[in-house]
Amino acid sequence: MNANGKNLLLRNVIRSGAACDIYIEDGKISRIGQNLQCGADAAVLDCRGMSVLPAFVNMHTHAGMTLFRGICEDMPLQTWLDAVWKAETALDDDLVYWGTRLACVEMIRTGTVAFNDMYWRIDRAAQAVEDSGMKAHLTYCFLDGGDPVRQKQQREECEAMYGVSRSWSSRIRFGVSVHAHYTVSDENMLWAADFARSRGLLLHTHLSETRAENEAHQARYGISPTRRLADMGLLGSDLTAAHALWLSEDDIRLIGESGTTVVHNINSNLKLASGWCFRYKELRDAGANVTMGTDGAGSSNNLDLREALKTAALMQKAWRGDPAALPLDELLAMGSVNGARALGINSGTVEEGASADLILVDTDSTFFVPAHDFKANFIYSANSSCIDTLICDGRILMREGRVEGQEEVLAMAKEETQRFLRKIK
Amino acid sequence: MNANGKNLLLRNVIRSGAACDIYIEDGKISRIGQNLQCGADAAVLDCRGMSVLPAFVNMHTHAGMTLFRGICEDMPLQTWLDAVWKAETALDDDLVYWGTRLACVEMIRTGTVAFNDMYWRIDRAAQAVEDSGMKAHLTYCFLDGGDPVRQKQQREECEAMYGVSRSWSSRIRFGVSVHAHYTVSDENMLWAADFARSRGLLLHTHLSETRAENEAHQARYGISPTRRLADMGLLGSDLTAAHALWLSEDDIRLIGESGTTVVHNINSNLKLASGWCFRYKELRDAGANVTMGTDGAGSSNNLDLREALKTAALMQKAWRGDPAALPLDELLAMGSVNGARALGINSGTVEEGASADLILVDTDSTFFVPAHDFKANFIYSANSSCIDTLICDGRILMREGRVEGQEEVLAMAKEETQRFLRKIK
Repeated sequence: MNANGKNLLLRNVIRSGAACDIYIEDGKISRIGQNLQCGADAAVLDCRGMSVLPAFVNMHTHAGMTLFRGICEDMPLQTWLDAVWKAETALDDDLVYWGTRLACVEMIRTGTVAFNDMYWRIDRAAQAVEDSGMKAHLTYCFLDGGDPVRQKQQREECEAMYGVSRSWSSRIRFGVSVHAHYTVSDENMLWAADFARSRGLLLHTHLSETRAENEAHQARYGISPTRRLADMGLLGSDLTAAHALWLSEDDIRLIGESGTTVVHNINSNLKLASGWCFRYKELRDAGANVTMGTDGAGSSNNLDLREALKTAALMQKAWRGDPAALPLDELLAMGSVNGARALGINSGTVEEGASADLILVDTDSTFFVPAHDFKANFIYSANSSCIDTLICDGRILMREGRVEGQEEVLAMAKEETQRFLRKIK
Repeated sequence: MNANGKNLLLRNVIRSGAACDIYIEDGKISRIGQNLQCGADAAVLDCRGMSVLPAFVNMHTHAGMTLFRGICEDMPLQTWLDAVWKAETALDDDLVYWGTRLACVEMIRTGTVAFNDMYWRIDRAAQAVEDSGMKAHLTYCFLDGGDPVRQKQQREECEAMYGVSRSWSSRIRFGVSVHAHYTVSDENMLWAADFARSRGLLLHTHLSETRAENEAHQARYGISPTRRLADMGLLGSDLTAAHALWLSEDDIRLIGESGTTVVHNINSNLKLASGWCFRYKELRDAGANVTMGTDGAGSSNNLDLREALKTAALMQKAWRGDPAALPLDELLAMGSVNGARALGINSGTVEEGASADLILVDTDSTFFVPAHDFKANFIYSANSSCIDTLICDGRILMREGRVEGQEEVLAMAKEETQRFLRKIK
């Protein structure tokens, strides 16, 4: 593996169907061409048989929940929530750290270079991301239930965590989450938005995930959750709204006009029986920035964004009765460049000047034979084990399917799980 | 790899959560226990870290179509059909042989030991299955469009192919397909059923895949396709009906009472925008034998049954609004023992006396950490690359993810694809 910052030459990699060399200097793609020369200090990677793609950006997850994967299967939602709530009472610094490390190994293994997170104890998550080599947007999460004591306490915690975040490396960005319109007081929603915007920070929230949540809001306020967020001034190109499943025409117009980013989390939506009617075309046409997420492994069981993209495309085709409802190029953009744009990361494309956030896909398997359509083979035929290499800012975090440090992470995650089980007994 | 017929001892494998040894003699599981002794001629496999499960049975596919994978993406159905039709005019013996070999490598790689096929030139498919080491039910397919010349010709071909099939090995069973109620004359549907049943052969058909097909039938005959099949005497425990998506209450009752096998092909149904409302619970409760298939790689892009099982469960949960709509044990039975029963194969369970048709799952990855629920991790978290080993009748067809003969098959499939592309130019 090349040391962080060392230059890297990808020799004979397939890009858009043609072989080329890609030279990476100081974490960026500096040149793409034939028979490129490189400095004596550069590492050279023989990429014969590999195709290069932008790495994925997972735009909505709760990384620390990975230790709760499979904790409550085939059960009604309330039983699942009870199990998760019980589990989360046991959360501590080490569980968040190793849960997030495990999540990072899994995301790297499945081609994700950056993620947008919403969870607790984010200073520990930040350390885990730092140690994993990935990029992340980690958010302090408001969830006060309207309780004035918690309202005040969370503001103070948010300010303190912002202070802590100033020491994070440039790969990790601090932001603010408003858990959801029905779990946070209006005062703190406004305070959080103001706090974030006055500091150039990004916002993250859940929006219209379930029909019940939407109907309850409509009954209470006489307007939709999206309309209320718009009235409060929360929509905007600096807000990422996860799920956005139950939207009216008016909601879609508001989201589109404001340039809000929405995140589709199809596997979680199906698993929790929330629904599948994500209005991709309307959101895209209205001007929304449409991205993809896995949600946490507690609900969707894995953090495999490529797999989520496949399910999303299949559902769009079937639900819309149109095999062209979500074309492959748009699907791949949802999974990469659209998310990168939302997080202010200069990647998601394989172009000179972009950050070298790349995956190399090994096409030596039945899934890529015949080679009539590489992108279709990658999304619809293969599984994510075809992702051989992941590069973040020019640094190799995975090669031949082995993630740097994975043995220690697996061992510690198993150990921490045992400690967690003893704790909640 | 152990030679065909050589005895095999699986040492320290996890079965239903506990470590044990499994001794395989003459292709069958002879003993399950602790510290088993074996003959000097037996091969011993160290299975530490592996979990054993019954191998999958793919109950509906068109294996030879694998060479058409990705041939026409993001296009309306009619364009896809035109492309496939054009492709199939070029079919010849070698394309079917290598397409089926490629399909077999892919099925073995993803844990499938046996499949129920409907395609052309089945003598070549039989040779491919023979050479792959798998099991299959290969069917002569009636598709006469009501043309009297083809009606007669196909009867003769069917009889001749039946004669040829007498020389096939015991792993390959000959059967009869009626392509669909709207593509085969009534005379040949009846003839095919009589031909099969008087010889103890099984039947295979498409049934109610699309809404349009169903509605056209209703308009023409005043009854549903299922009711017509029932009236003609075709339903029965020796018939496998693929898709069965658009069924009435009456249809479900008829299918259940007759003990007909139905095959759910969710990935194909979604990809071709056929629908997703597969009435699992009703079919199960009515007495149908409910199984799983991938359909051909021309439509569903791969032959990965584990992946199809995941999509099926997610859709059932979401569509039924019930996270318990398709529990894991029933899901795994759909993918294994139910299909084995339909094909008359004594496998689908890991019990003494059963055929040794097994997979070994490697749990050394993030997808299986934590280990709260192995089956949930296998279906919802992992991808099929976790399947390390496949054993068919006690013979190892894959070990450490490498399928016997895969290099030659990939090379020849690529070569044949080039020949095919020159042919259809």
